[in-house]
Amino acid sequence: MTGEVMLAEIREQPLALRRLVEQRSELAAVATALARRTPRIVRLVGHGTSDNAASYGIYALGLLPGWTALRDSISLTVYYGAPIEFRGSAVIALSQSGRTPDVVEYVSRARAGGALTIALTNEPASELGRAAELVLPLAAGPELAVAATKTYLNELAALALLAGAAVGRLDEVGEGIRRVADLLADSLPRLEAAVSPVAAACAFVGRMFVIGRGLEYATAREIALKLTETCRVAAEPLTATDLVHGPLAALDPLFPVWAI
Amino acid sequence: MTGEVMLAEIREQPLALRRLVEQRSELAAVATALARRTPRIVRLVGHGTSDNAASYGIYALGLLPGWTALRDSISLTVYYGAPIEFRGSAVIALSQSGRTPDVVEYVSRARAGGALTIALTNEPASELGRAAELVLPLAAGPELAVAATKTYLNELAALALLAGAAVGRLDEVGEGIRRVADLLADSLPRLEAAVSPVAAACAFVGRMFVIGRGLEYATAREIALKLTETCRVAAEPLTATDLVHGPLAALDPLFPVWAI
Repeated sequence: MTGEVMLAEIREQPLALRRLVEQRSELAAVATALARRTPRIVRLVGHGTSDNAASYGIYALGLLPGWTALRDSISLTVYYGAPIEFRGSAVIALSQSGRTPDVVEYVSRARAGGALTIALTNEPASELGRAAELVLPLAAGPELAVAATKTYLNELAALALLAGAAVGRLDEVGEGIRRVADLLADSLPRLEAAVSPVAAACAFVGRMFVIGRGLEYATAREIALKLTETCRVAAEPLTATDLVHGPLAALDPLFPVWAI
Repeated sequence: MTGEVMLAEIREQPLALRRLVEQRSELAAVATALARRTPRIVRLVGHGTSDNAASYGIYALGLLPGWTALRDSISLTVYYGAPIEFRGSAVIALSQSGRTPDVVEYVSRARAGGALTIALTNEPASELGRAAELVLPLAAGPELAVAATKTYLNELAALALLAGAAVGRLDEVGEGIRRVADLLADSLPRLEAAVSPVAAACAFVGRMFVIGRGLEYATAREIALKLTETCRVAAEPLTATDLVHGPLAALDPLFPVWAI
């Protein structure tokens, strides 16, 4: 059953996080290359869960080194051939499998245009791994459940590690992630026990807003995606400000809102 | 009734577009200032409908002058105080009323940090108009229906005019927009007659995906916002690629998809 595979992979999260942090030499190599370039723009690309992780990268890279990071439009480069200037940019491409065709194509074009290209993937030997100049293995292991769980967490952690490394705080961030892994290992059994009654109450929900701003926006997006793809709930992620600018009008006592 | 006010404002769209294009001197002033700076990054900010228009700006400014435009995180600067470098950036702030507090605050900080700041608003004398270095009046006139219609169209047109002006094609884009205004004036009565039977069939829809990629993504976002705020449909905008990366699993014969 898919649910069981997904649960098994959720349980692997602490181990996956620890495995990522242990990759000292890979982390240092990417961090050194980034520091040498001091990118004016960091272009994050990925789809689905990886694009949600990119939302977090905007804050991690903005808050620590103060870089402007964006979830870049893949279409603009790959399909429209826009004359975008890539020198001065670093590209961080996120993909579980490393096989997403338009992400691979985007990385090839950005690299040819002079960007520093970095692949974050579970499959360093993939097309994406080969297309990028540098690879940081996500080290989450294969995601069989398709609804990616440990990969999402390792994508966030990898972005935090790169942001930390850019300001000479790699060890500190690494230590923090190890602590998160320990806390997760402690909390997961209790969470699993607590979650069933809440889930039952939501069994007939057909639509939902998931609200989170800033650092929490990535979480809101990933929760909404998981609700949609695993529970068939039409869940839309919004910031609290987005909610006020229009969608608020849709709310009534039977329209659930999940606020982070 | 709100619906009647909204319809009246939709009918003003051709007039509003023509009014915008007639502002030769304002357009030329902003275009000259932009050309002098040749920004490496254009930061678009706004909420709701204005943020949807910003999605179009990413393509207009990417396709014509080849600039990297992004919908910037307002939180990162205004609430987190991230040490973002604003020199080398142009900011285009979009707001119907010019009174959105965090947009005004963002513009003040970006301007103090060295960005060229431009306000696109219907209210040039507003807080936003005063906070920005340059103002391009949207000239749509007040939006009484709240669900913004003519403002959205004028925001798209203003971004197209600025993108055109950046590559010396202001007259050509202006002529195109005048043609669009004529086509709109011709088509609106026929559209109004054709729309009722389609709307009736959707009266009991509670959720929907709206699909559009690239240049059409802004349209998909704005349609979804309008469905949510005026019809209380939980409509989520997605690119076709987003749809495949997860949400596809939610579809069944009773889950409507509006594809552009």
